[in-house]
Amino acid sequence: MDFVQCVLFRFFLQVWSEKDFLFLKKKLGGTHPYCHYFKSGFFGSGLAVFSKHRIHDTFLYKYTLNGYPYMAHHGDWFGGKAVGKILLNIDGLEVHVFVTHLHAEYSREQDSYLPHRVVQAWELQNFIRHTSAGADVVILGGDLNMHPTDLGIRLLQSYTELKDCFNETASFDGCEQGFTHITDNPFTHKQGLVPFGGGIRIDYIFFKGSEKAQVSCESLSTSKGPIPGQPFPYSDHETLSAELVLYPAKVEKGESKQEKVCTTEKLSELVNIVTEARTEVKVGLHCAERMRYTAARTGIMGLALLLLELAIAAVPCLALGTEQNFPKASFYLLGALCFSILFSTTLLYIFYGMEVRALQGAEDQMRLAVGSLQERLKEITNGASEERSQEKDHGDPHD
Amino acid sequence: MDFVQCVLFRFFLQVWSEKDFLFLKKKLGGTHPYCHYFKSGFFGSGLAVFSKHRIHDTFLYKYTLNGYPYMAHHGDWFGGKAVGKILLNIDGLEVHVFVTHLHAEYSREQDSYLPHRVVQAWELQNFIRHTSAGADVVILGGDLNMHPTDLGIRLLQSYTELKDCFNETASFDGCEQGFTHITDNPFTHKQGLVPFGGGIRIDYIFFKGSEKAQVSCESLSTSKGPIPGQPFPYSDHETLSAELVLYPAKVEKGESKQEKVCTTEKLSELVNIVTEARTEVKVGLHCAERMRYTAARTGIMGLALLLLELAIAAVPCLALGTEQNFPKASFYLLGALCFSILFSTTLLYIFYGMEVRALQGAEDQMRLAVGSLQERLKEITNGASEERSQEKDHGDPHD
Repeated sequence: MDFVQCVLFRFFLQVWSEKDFLFLKKKLGGTHPYCHYFKSGFFGSGLAVFSKHRIHDTFLYKYTLNGYPYMAHHGDWFGGKAVGKILLNIDGLEVHVFVTHLHAEYSREQDSYLPHRVVQAWELQNFIRHTSAGADVVILGGDLNMHPTDLGIRLLQSYTELKDCFNETASFDGCEQGFTHITDNPFTHKQGLVPFGGGIRIDYIFFKGSEKAQVSCESLSTSKGPIPGQPFPYSDHETLSAELVLYPAKVEKGESKQEKVCTTEKLSELVNIVTEARTEVKVGLHCAERMRYTAARTGIMGLALLLLELAIAAVPCLALGTEQNFPKASFYLLGALCFSILFSTTLLYIFYGMEVRALQGAEDQMRLAVGSLQERLKEITNGASEERSQEKDHGDPHD
Repeated sequence: MDFVQCVLFRFFLQVWSEKDFLFLKKKLGGTHPYCHYFKSGFFGSGLAVFSKHRIHDTFLYKYTLNGYPYMAHHGDWFGGKAVGKILLNIDGLEVHVFVTHLHAEYSREQDSYLPHRVVQAWELQNFIRHTSAGADVVILGGDLNMHPTDLGIRLLQSYTELKDCFNETASFDGCEQGFTHITDNPFTHKQGLVPFGGGIRIDYIFFKGSEKAQVSCESLSTSKGPIPGQPFPYSDHETLSAELVLYPAKVEKGESKQEKVCTTEKLSELVNIVTEARTEVKVGLHCAERMRYTAARTGIMGLALLLLELAIAAVPCLALGTEQNFPKASFYLLGALCFSILFSTTLLYIFYGMEVRALQGAEDQMRLAVGSLQERLKEITNGASEERSQEKDHGDPHD
């Protein structure tokens, strides 16, 4: 059976409250009757998906690391970052659709969230690989907050073999170079985008087929600033739309030498990328351990100050001479200060401890992955050299 | 190729600190050279796996709900509950091994953690289903803290079709009825086990094969109290060991009518079980909403008391007559009390809000799953009735 079928659904990558989701659900109900809201946030924000096809199954994975709660003005920690998966059945094909939002990049030069974003990209590719083994078609849409050549994107694409719609599309209509975060947007911090020529491409739609189905991207488009007839745009990022077409796949059996070389090259590249990611995670680990140490030291200083204050209050002669008592207002203020230092540093110490363990966990996984990839590479190389020696023996039978 | 291969690995379901893991790693290094530690806890506890076969890949999923931090004496919230997955390659077969630990049951009659455990069982089956589509063999070992006929076990087994080693084993050696939590254990609260005949079976090893491999359980055993030659046992639960044998599978093609009836029955049963789980989650949701409301009310009362105190202090004539001032010690004590009430109720309100959203998320997924299962059931029933009418037409061509 030949079939051509457009996949029709919409992502709304991050909705800040369930009310917004319900508003969208009402508005889109006529054209997209199926929807799901992944509640990922601390207060009610989440990831929403609207679909023309029935949603058969869903699964949510929350990223282990996502910024710091005390960076409240950035809001990422409270927004909650996750990857949601929905399962559609289109003309007998199992289509796995992933939707995600990674931690924002607030400064490219001093990006303290880089290790967190790298771990999120690592967990994202892990989640996609582990959950899409039975998929005929895989689609990922997301605000990845990474430039196209950034480590996280390379990690994701090399491991999952997902293709970027922007590079694969037959026709493109939208902002220059596919920018989705542009200076023309009134919600954008313009200064940060100037070095990149007025915009960056940080929102993506990726796809891949399988033995059973081929996928091609017929068209890709972005919105260009304000909503027609309105002075404001849909969001702080431009919207991204892709038209994907699914065909029955031509099953190609047998692996040629060319493909084997390709696999070896790919594996070597993957080893390099995972090693690069591991280095980035190690840098993050070093920072987190230093922050935990600072929290512990400050906490100990707070405790020492509190004990000193109590000692001074208990033995007035030590303080301001035998006649003067410790002033009460100062006593209470200093006590409150010591307590708040102790309390906040304890919380920070626990938080940084959790960050350290999460980074260690990711690093452990990466070390194991590199080991496994290198073993596969060795097996292929050994196999190839054995083949070569056999061919040689076969070619010179009398030698 | 005919092959028979025992799967050899050990789970250490919950290790309380990384030091314990490193100790075990050193001790087991000679026989089980491959291991992985899933850091799931708040302070360093986690799930450990030791294997004779190389571990090629790992993945960790932390459960959304896991008790309450203020129930510190129970410790589950701090221990962290998760499911870890490791990927082994045994004689060309892809073996997915899952290891988990669910929230403990402290009282069977008044089990306030039941909705949490049901959501954990739901997430566990979801994780296994979504991540093991490409597996040739699936093995799950875990301290599930549920009796064999409990809702969570039925949910897990019906959805994933995993088989319980205790029911499938060719030979069993161990405690009566496969008990793993017994009164003879010195770390056990004996009174709770009396109604169950001196023990319960709450630790399991499940398995399933695939089109490519058949799995059978040759033997299952539990330890029986103390370590030989020592007065104490290995743990608060008896250890569980299984010997699994993998054979190449006989591929059976074509689906008979008997199988179709079986599928219909299975789907109906699954709908009932998911509906039961949904009801349990709704009960939990109701409790969490009530607790959130209580926290809000108590917080408002604390705020009102604080404002009243400030008003009394500001206008002394309202307090104890025009001549008496508000006693300073009482003022500070009452102020501190109000602040601590406000602070703790705010934290509780946020925490219960997160619990409400997590339960709503699970309930949403369950509702969607029931809808999808019912649709499949309808399709099968419609297909069967169409087949019957076609057969009838075929049988009476002249009617």
